[in-house]
Amino acid sequence: MSDQLVAGIEPPYYTVVFTSRLRPEGDQDAYAETARRMAELVAEVPGFLGYESARTPGGLGITVGYFRDEDSIAAWRMNLEHQRAQRQGRAEWYERYSVHVGRVERSYGHVHAE
Amino acid sequence: MSDQLVAGIEPPYYTVVFTSRLRPEGDQDAYAETARRMAELVAEVPGFLGYESARTPGGLGITVGYFRDEDSIAAWRMNLEHQRAQRQGRAEWYERYSVHVGRVERSYGHVHAE
Repeated sequence: MSDQLVAGIEPPYYTVVFTSRLRPEGDQDAYAETARRMAELVAEVPGFLGYESARTPGGLGITVGYFRDEDSIAAWRMNLEHQRAQRQGRAEWYERYSVHVGRVERSYGHVHAE
Repeated sequence: MSDQLVAGIEPPYYTVVFTSRLRPEGDQDAYAETARRMAELVAEVPGFLGYESARTPGGLGITVGYFRDEDSIAAWRMNLEHQRAQRQGRAEWYERYSVHVGRVERSYGHVHAE
């Protein structure tokens, strides 16, 4: 999982917000390995700008993918290995998930100065 | 922190993605208390639709706020108690953060069927 913040992208761009709860009985190692592979794979998509991911232990997970445009989101959605992972996710890992695709017109940030 | 998924909102709506890293030397109890108070306060904003939050221990935190329109986001941004908390956050708690405001035109979800 990435532990860097994505920042400094010039709008417009898109955020794909993926929020999920895992099934406690799912194979967490297989899930982590697939998540690692998906991170590798999405980085090859033209227009992919980065992602951030966080999960409260035993609670919610939120992953935000940043994409330049709808075409880059569509390319990722149509990736066959990604589609296989999604099917496995629905069958084995996720208790539930939601996806929200948003067009970003403004963003800002802050870095603490020592 | 909410551990429920936000789902079933009819587009269009807005996601405010807030991603952050905490300073390890910050007062975590005071931070948690302020976060709890902000969750209480934002719920009073007309057009606020819910939020989700996750934090990897020692790593990234991601909070997604869902709002009906730009007016509801502006009302939250202009709340004075929220502004005080933001100033304290910048001064004491956050190593860095980013905010991405997106207009959602489509969303979908999945619930695992037993």
